[in-house]
Amino acid sequence: MAAPSLDFWLEFASTYSYLAAIRIGPLAAAADVKVRFRPFLLGPIFAAQGWTTSPFNLFAAKGRNMWRDLERTCADLGLPFRRPEPFPQSSVLAARIALVGLGAPWGEDFCRATYRAEFAEGRRIDDPETIRGILSGLNADPGAVMAEAQSAAIKDKLRAETAEAQNLGIFGAPSFITPDRELFWGNDRLETALGWAKRTP
Amino acid sequence: MAAPSLDFWLEFASTYSYLAAIRIGPLAAAADVKVRFRPFLLGPIFAAQGWTTSPFNLFAAKGRNMWRDLERTCADLGLPFRRPEPFPQSSVLAARIALVGLGAPWGEDFCRATYRAEFAEGRRIDDPETIRGILSGLNADPGAVMAEAQSAAIKDKLRAETAEAQNLGIFGAPSFITPDRELFWGNDRLETALGWAKRTP
Repeated sequence: MAAPSLDFWLEFASTYSYLAAIRIGPLAAAADVKVRFRPFLLGPIFAAQGWTTSPFNLFAAKGRNMWRDLERTCADLGLPFRRPEPFPQSSVLAARIALVGLGAPWGEDFCRATYRAEFAEGRRIDDPETIRGILSGLNADPGAVMAEAQSAAIKDKLRAETAEAQNLGIFGAPSFITPDRELFWGNDRLETALGWAKRTP
Repeated sequence: MAAPSLDFWLEFASTYSYLAAIRIGPLAAAADVKVRFRPFLLGPIFAAQGWTTSPFNLFAAKGRNMWRDLERTCADLGLPFRRPEPFPQSSVLAARIALVGLGAPWGEDFCRATYRAEFAEGRRIDDPETIRGILSGLNADPGAVMAEAQSAAIKDKLRAETAEAQNLGIFGAPSFITPDRELFWGNDRLETALGWAKRTP
């Protein structure tokens, strides 16, 4: 019997994806569920429903609550938090690099380091220098990885992943999908999704 | 020192308000927090940001996930669930009746019974007969209560409560607000809100 598994769909501009990316490793290990990181872009999915930016910017009261909720939740989890400026940041470069890295041993570490840079350290993930610094810290070759990330293969892969996310019914991030295609939306559903994955390997 | 307290802002058309309305009593008793039920209308708040109906109807993928999430969550909680048709239902009558009842001993029971009628029994809460039946079951006088609910005083009260909700930054339901004006949004934050209330009586 295959080990239970769960797809973790993440968007690097997404605030609650930061929490899920940091939390999912230990929780999945404890639950004995194998997790696959699936970076994608929310921009095209939002655009398809007429949104030009994050709903947290479009709807002011919702946005105010999100920042405060994130601040409180990070405090409860003992996670550092610093509100990124600007928000959202373009996540295309980070997502492409992650797709390169997830075929190598440093992919998940890159995801976590990128979220920390953006949401804990106030750095800009749309700045190639930030990404180069993260790659150096992971002993990846920044020049080679940046070049591969701009290849047609990786660009196509990110477009295909985003289209798959949309086809699966994903409308926000983080999202979790089990092998039987059960969709769970939001950091708040991480534990529930892992529980479901265990029941349906 | 006053007992810790929490305002529970509820909207009778709101799916997750059903869960919170059923759950809040025992949880608040266990936490020794005094809860005040505050019915209001989301319609005018949605309209102010350009929405003519529930976001679950406006955004199809979000709506599909909500119904499935509600189904799963009710199963986990052992709560009956039946998807209401139509959705959302006009909640004006129920909210006015609740405002009458919350000045009498049967107010919270009315709220719970109304949510059960709508989300567990497939009944229409915009039908005065449903409301009369609930009132009879609570030994309230349907004729007198219906008349008071249509009084100018109660109509004004519901408008004022809705305006206060908006001023407090409420944008969805259920919402919970502590005496120090900390806002928590959603059934998922009920336990956290109770915990906050205990820390800041």
